[in-house]
Amino acid sequence: MHALYFDGKPQIKEVPRPEPGEGEVLVRVHLAGICRTDLEVLRGYHGFQGIMGHEFVGEVAAPEDSPWLGQRVVGEINLGCGGCDLCRRGLVRHCRQRRVLGLKGHDGALAQYLTLPAANLHAVPASVPDVLAVFTEPLAAALRVMEATPVSPSARVLVVGDGPLGLQVSWVLALSGAEVHLAGHHPDHLSLARPGGVAAFLSPDLPTGDYDIVVEASGSPSGLELALTRVRPGGTMVMKSTYAGRYPLDPAVLVVPEVRLVGCRCGPFPGALRLLRDGRVDPRPLIDRTFPLSRALEALARAQRPGVLKVLLDCRGGEA
Amino acid sequence: MHALYFDGKPQIKEVPRPEPGEGEVLVRVHLAGICRTDLEVLRGYHGFQGIMGHEFVGEVAAPEDSPWLGQRVVGEINLGCGGCDLCRRGLVRHCRQRRVLGLKGHDGALAQYLTLPAANLHAVPASVPDVLAVFTEPLAAALRVMEATPVSPSARVLVVGDGPLGLQVSWVLALSGAEVHLAGHHPDHLSLARPGGVAAFLSPDLPTGDYDIVVEASGSPSGLELALTRVRPGGTMVMKSTYAGRYPLDPAVLVVPEVRLVGCRCGPFPGALRLLRDGRVDPRPLIDRTFPLSRALEALARAQRPGVLKVLLDCRGGEA
Repeated sequence: MHALYFDGKPQIKEVPRPEPGEGEVLVRVHLAGICRTDLEVLRGYHGFQGIMGHEFVGEVAAPEDSPWLGQRVVGEINLGCGGCDLCRRGLVRHCRQRRVLGLKGHDGALAQYLTLPAANLHAVPASVPDVLAVFTEPLAAALRVMEATPVSPSARVLVVGDGPLGLQVSWVLALSGAEVHLAGHHPDHLSLARPGGVAAFLSPDLPTGDYDIVVEASGSPSGLELALTRVRPGGTMVMKSTYAGRYPLDPAVLVVPEVRLVGCRCGPFPGALRLLRDGRVDPRPLIDRTFPLSRALEALARAQRPGVLKVLLDCRGGEA
Repeated sequence: MHALYFDGKPQIKEVPRPEPGEGEVLVRVHLAGICRTDLEVLRGYHGFQGIMGHEFVGEVAAPEDSPWLGQRVVGEINLGCGGCDLCRRGLVRHCRQRRVLGLKGHDGALAQYLTLPAANLHAVPASVPDVLAVFTEPLAAALRVMEATPVSPSARVLVVGDGPLGLQVSWVLALSGAEVHLAGHHPDHLSLARPGGVAAFLSPDLPTGDYDIVVEASGSPSGLELALTRVRPGGTMVMKSTYAGRYPLDPAVLVVPEVRLVGCRCGPFPGALRLLRDGRVDPRPLIDRTFPLSRALEALARAQRPGVLKVLLDCRGGEA
């Protein structure tokens, strides 16, 4: 099968179709998304080698006796060992020996086929087209903010960063009834936020005053700085984004105003699927362009251009 | 009256006895404690000038018509404006225009008399001697950890730092039934922790494994580093201590394992007074020495010596 393979440099490669192991299924990938983390893989993140990609929708193609056979699915990306103390406490996403689809120890979704444990799958409702379902993973990551901190309908919330993650975070936060502001640098992205009930501003134009909750989704030191200066005493800052490098943190900035800083990563797929099914969130305006898998290198280059939102790959073409 | 005054350098000074303003009382100070923050004042913290000190027990000496007159009291150190958005939300400790006893805009407790709003006072039960009551403020700050994060009786907790704050934090955490470890550098301090049900270790001898909750109370970059490496994925790190300087924080250390970092400062006086009254915590072993106010400079020098725990000042001597 064709796959976008990374071993120091990305390449389209012909590789054997993977064999599902015990408890696993084979998924024929329909659509896959390119995420900022995939671009970090290109820069050596985790030292990953293998098939890239972790955002996908597809259908189960094997084994023949799986109750999932023929089902359209999305899949959680963390593969726990099942035996460590964290897995036993239900913290599978934080398993100490975890593998992660397309990011760590397990081949990913930018291919015609992938394998995943059946336990990682979620059925996609028939009413949710592939072009929406492919957003389940990033939308779930956005929803994780609501699990990281209670969001009161009377809260004043700021999201920093107007990339796909920041936009999706701002949309789901606005569904809580809270007053949500978004700060970014791209007028065209900010205009996408507004139909979701979000007040969006170029960062220099952000109104004065501080916020009960600030979500840092820019993945930049300047975004982190803005977030820390705008969270109110006793407030919460949710960190969604990493970046290569270190931020010089003054401990007094957290201790004296009793600010909480909450790291936040992967989120709940079922909630994301419900929001997509019910039309509460429609991420389709985030799509920049869809490439066939055969043009994955072009797609990667496109995704790396500043200001480009979501690039998708259609993985159904070519021989199986 | 005599007072320990700071205006770039500390000095014993004869100053006018303060006049209580509207809503305020005059307190004749019995005992006062020297805290690490006072030592930071000596290094220019907040650019404070005035009478130092914020840990005290005393009795109300004026006005004559106060219902508090003659009452033995301790007092909360934050003076809110009462009018800003944070005061109106009950976040008086975080008032944007707040003054702080002996730390910011309001003369402190290392004197024969101080003034405070009556609203800041708490009556000391007759059964609690001055030598215990003087610990109310720091013990309340230790109790604040229990407000910053739920502490389950089945939690594994680590406190980093074996100064007075770390020891008091470890004692109150052990009262929850949780398994509490303390990491420090002073064998004699560690031995004070153990009667409180705390397992205390020299930092290099700390058992392997990570903790559900880690409290950083060392005020050192190496303590912060140890704390961050020992908090489990999904766990909470409570920051009690500041230090001059910045810590180079890798955002991935919080985001990927979804760690929470909670800043934590002043705490609840009523709970602290109850624990002292009921003998649940006895901080007296922390007392290094008690000096008369006239020897406050000696007391400051003593408090700055490495490994010295709590230095007290008896402020009742001399003419009033």
